[in-house]
Amino acid sequence: MSHQSALTAYIAAFVAELVHTGIKDVVVSPGSRSTPMAMVMAEHPGLNLHVHVDERSAAFFALGIAKSSGRPAVLLCTSGTAAANYFPAIVEARYSRVPLLVLTADRPHELRDVGAPQAIDQIDLYGKHVKWFTEMALPEESADMLRYARMVCGRAAAVALQAPAGPVHLNFPFREPLIPDLENERLFELAERAEGFVSVTQGQRSLDQEGLKRIAAELGMYEKGIIVCGQMDNIAFSEKVEQLAEALGYPVLADPLSQLRSGSNSGKWIVDAYDSFLRFEDVKQQLKPEVVIRFGAMPVSKALTVFLKENRGARQFVVDGGGGWLDPHALSTEMVYCDEALFCEGLLSFIKKKQTANFAGKWLRLNSIAKEAMDAGMDREEMNESLIYRELPELLPEGSSLFVGNSMPIRDLDSFFWLNDKKINVMANRGANGIDGVVSTALGASLYGGQMYLVLGDLTFFHDLNGLLPAKLYNLDMTVIVINNNGGGIFSFLPQAGQARNFERLFGTPLDLDFSHVVNMYGGNFTRVHDWTSYRDAILSANNTPGLKVIEVVTDRAENAADHRRLWAAVSREIARLGAGEE
Amino acid sequence: MSHQSALTAYIAAFVAELVHTGIKDVVVSPGSRSTPMAMVMAEHPGLNLHVHVDERSAAFFALGIAKSSGRPAVLLCTSGTAAANYFPAIVEARYSRVPLLVLTADRPHELRDVGAPQAIDQIDLYGKHVKWFTEMALPEESADMLRYARMVCGRAAAVALQAPAGPVHLNFPFREPLIPDLENERLFELAERAEGFVSVTQGQRSLDQEGLKRIAAELGMYEKGIIVCGQMDNIAFSEKVEQLAEALGYPVLADPLSQLRSGSNSGKWIVDAYDSFLRFEDVKQQLKPEVVIRFGAMPVSKALTVFLKENRGARQFVVDGGGGWLDPHALSTEMVYCDEALFCEGLLSFIKKKQTANFAGKWLRLNSIAKEAMDAGMDREEMNESLIYRELPELLPEGSSLFVGNSMPIRDLDSFFWLNDKKINVMANRGANGIDGVVSTALGASLYGGQMYLVLGDLTFFHDLNGLLPAKLYNLDMTVIVINNNGGGIFSFLPQAGQARNFERLFGTPLDLDFSHVVNMYGGNFTRVHDWTSYRDAILSANNTPGLKVIEVVTDRAENAADHRRLWAAVSREIARLGAGEE
Repeated sequence: MSHQSALTAYIAAFVAELVHTGIKDVVVSPGSRSTPMAMVMAEHPGLNLHVHVDERSAAFFALGIAKSSGRPAVLLCTSGTAAANYFPAIVEARYSRVPLLVLTADRPHELRDVGAPQAIDQIDLYGKHVKWFTEMALPEESADMLRYARMVCGRAAAVALQAPAGPVHLNFPFREPLIPDLENERLFELAERAEGFVSVTQGQRSLDQEGLKRIAAELGMYEKGIIVCGQMDNIAFSEKVEQLAEALGYPVLADPLSQLRSGSNSGKWIVDAYDSFLRFEDVKQQLKPEVVIRFGAMPVSKALTVFLKENRGARQFVVDGGGGWLDPHALSTEMVYCDEALFCEGLLSFIKKKQTANFAGKWLRLNSIAKEAMDAGMDREEMNESLIYRELPELLPEGSSLFVGNSMPIRDLDSFFWLNDKKINVMANRGANGIDGVVSTALGASLYGGQMYLVLGDLTFFHDLNGLLPAKLYNLDMTVIVINNNGGGIFSFLPQAGQARNFERLFGTPLDLDFSHVVNMYGGNFTRVHDWTSYRDAILSANNTPGLKVIEVVTDRAENAADHRRLWAAVSREIARLGAGEE
Repeated sequence: MSHQSALTAYIAAFVAELVHTGIKDVVVSPGSRSTPMAMVMAEHPGLNLHVHVDERSAAFFALGIAKSSGRPAVLLCTSGTAAANYFPAIVEARYSRVPLLVLTADRPHELRDVGAPQAIDQIDLYGKHVKWFTEMALPEESADMLRYARMVCGRAAAVALQAPAGPVHLNFPFREPLIPDLENERLFELAERAEGFVSVTQGQRSLDQEGLKRIAAELGMYEKGIIVCGQMDNIAFSEKVEQLAEALGYPVLADPLSQLRSGSNSGKWIVDAYDSFLRFEDVKQQLKPEVVIRFGAMPVSKALTVFLKENRGARQFVVDGGGGWLDPHALSTEMVYCDEALFCEGLLSFIKKKQTANFAGKWLRLNSIAKEAMDAGMDREEMNESLIYRELPELLPEGSSLFVGNSMPIRDLDSFFWLNDKKINVMANRGANGIDGVVSTALGASLYGGQMYLVLGDLTFFHDLNGLLPAKLYNLDMTVIVINNNGGGIFSFLPQAGQARNFERLFGTPLDLDFSHVVNMYGGNFTRVHDWTSYRDAILSANNTPGLKVIEVVTDRAENAADHRRLWAAVSREIARLGAGEE
């Protein structure tokens, strides 16, 4: 039982079980201490290995893979700060409920905390931001320890997937020499069980008939109800929630990440322009709900948040299959821990008769007026940020994925990306809403998400330029639309915009970067556009060109803020003109 | 007592005390929640604000400032993953003992763990990797709470500086609205104490006379002693340790980061080529020490480490003013917790008479032979990595700083950067030896470290390309020498180099990047050199050109490994020829 033989057998058992759990993708960052795990993984025909030098980007790349595939993605790095670079993506995975399996190689116990190179304290390295941490035993090849390696692997993947999904961290101490024996042809064979060591079947939270009946009866008491849907990755949910809306006669306020604004459903009950008309007092007076049913994360719209806070007298059901507490403003009167699709489906059989839908009609009418007013008011001459989002459903191919950056893009998407019948999967990193790692997450998501379109601002693009490398190394396809307003656009909408002193220095932060250089370095196709014709041409051309395409749209932060205010004013005028805000 | 007035007074008290502690530099990353702190800091004439969009690079930039200035540098960011991006630099600061004061803005308690945007659990965010964490109280303006803000500030700076220095983390909950009142002309005035709230005087660990006498007596028993100096930032130490060597007649094995290879000391006792001749069995037999006195971190040389492990019968004193346990191979027989300079100075008065220095003579003679053999063997026709380091003392200006990347550059520096009388401050990130953040650390260090020269490999350069941004935005001066061997050079020296299968994919990782693009984007001057004349011209021209200059030296990984082996063989031959390895 040599060192090498134990090292090889133990790691091979772990890797074989990894594949048995259904995991397919591993993102590896090169390093010395992780050598045995990387070399064994590279031998397994069932794993796709993606090598990425920058661990921060690597972790977001894995996050993207997991987001679009629904499977845990695996990360592997060496000891030291390499592992610390994973932290931002791990935090994002935790809050956005994305399954990750983080494997860090470590020095063995005798080389810890004694000044050995590249040795840092990796026990509980990510603190409360992983769902489970375990320090693995040193490699051994007794049958017990091979079972242990397989068992921990199966369990770790299951914990990562269990609702709410999230990251799990396993720390592997390895002693030198680090080279495994790859000559064994039966490397991944399992002595005891032919198929794999253990499989895990995950049940979902669901209410019993009594609970559903009670809630249905309570909802039956209210005509003035609204359904609010934030970010949601529950595939079965979209259809079910529209059926529930139909049964209750409630409008569905659909955040752009609810997956309810695009696709094949009827869209009959969808309200998608609330962010514009919930800014006006007289309108809000007419729309006061008696009951709110909320699914998913809090929607991005600040106007909607304010509206909900103004209506805290309403009953509010917050339905969460992940069992969390997604209620930043203490608005919920009832937390319901139940898979969202099962909740909708279960209620349907208990809802007696369709409510009158006058209240929903009011919402839907205002929604139409608002969209028509904004559409008519949009500048189709000068390049502007609002029209970019308005036109995405027309320009993007069926079945594509749209990833948006945080800060302004997600808000503009909310304001101007309206109901359409394209099948477009809309994604963003909304766990912690960072501007970091967005390029990498989108690129990772592109592996399983159809043609990928990423819309982001220049600061967000800058933050993760390193994320472009895999596009070059692995010839990945992605179209990036960089809205370059030379700095932080969102601050022009915040109170400090009034404080001229130090504003540009602290918040505007213009970078004055010509991104064509770096896009060329990564072998991408760079196009800078200043007008609509060139923009449309660039997108249509990108649709049919493989590889990395970056389209830079040059805009102006101050003009953009003014443009938004002009559109909201148009909505206000049109509502006033049509008397739609009156009872 | 309005919200704004309390917010302003509380933060101003903190910021005023920050300046009172002697802190001068703050690295700010733009964000919303940190608005009040950033705006108040920008008002203080005593603070230099450096704005950096990428928090990972920002934190390493601050690390560099602290390393070269000896003062704690302050970091400020908003809530969420922004703070997580600081983690790699914080870990490095912890292990390399660099004082940092990390300020993170946070949502107030009522917005935590309830799905509010950009809210993550920031309590103990960096776990065991900071020396002190405290959650600050919400802003209040009672006299007690202003005293509290000042007291925590003074204490935090003192904890960061206290040996071993390191990072401290304060988390600030701020409620909206976030705009402070900057119209108060007496913003930073202190009601109670004119000068500042509290100052901290730090004593150093020192031995009493009895302890020194005992150790001196023990050392007096051994003729065959060596002094080993690893990385050391104790300015007073260099002179004192050479005096101690003179008194004891022991050679000083000086790591390149010991600050003993450059500068104004005699250098009489310095051995700087041990990494070459401690590879040969017959040589090592002649150099066996009876006693070892070790200062600072473990030296980078693997040959020296092996030699010390082979001589674990020797008594080994490990002297550490930081009170750590820097002994990865359990070689110490005595840990001595005493400031290193005070230790040397204190011993001097108790050392009776100079030992015979035959043993030291042997070390010094072998050292000369080795350097002459390598020098004669160096290829001065073809570009190669060894000669780059050999020539640095000649090419760099007096008073400059040399920062080297981890992996190969630090090892090559060890092998080929020899004793010289230029005053060159040699730096590296040797806490956790990561390849991350090196560009930013060097650029930060350039603010207080004289003309900055950074030597690093292509993977390390790639990892922190974002770190180049401040060079453009603030017109900073730095010369970067990128040794581009298209991938991870160090792996060619490790056992996996023999395993052809998957080697390039997992370890070689060629990036095939033309860095001229990205250097142009950051407004730098890019020169690619293939021969010695152009290389020397490029360095000499860079010496007299302000701004960012990047000199790319194109080398080959396999040829480099062969070149190293050739030089070691030359050393071996020359030692054999001169019979220097014999008794």
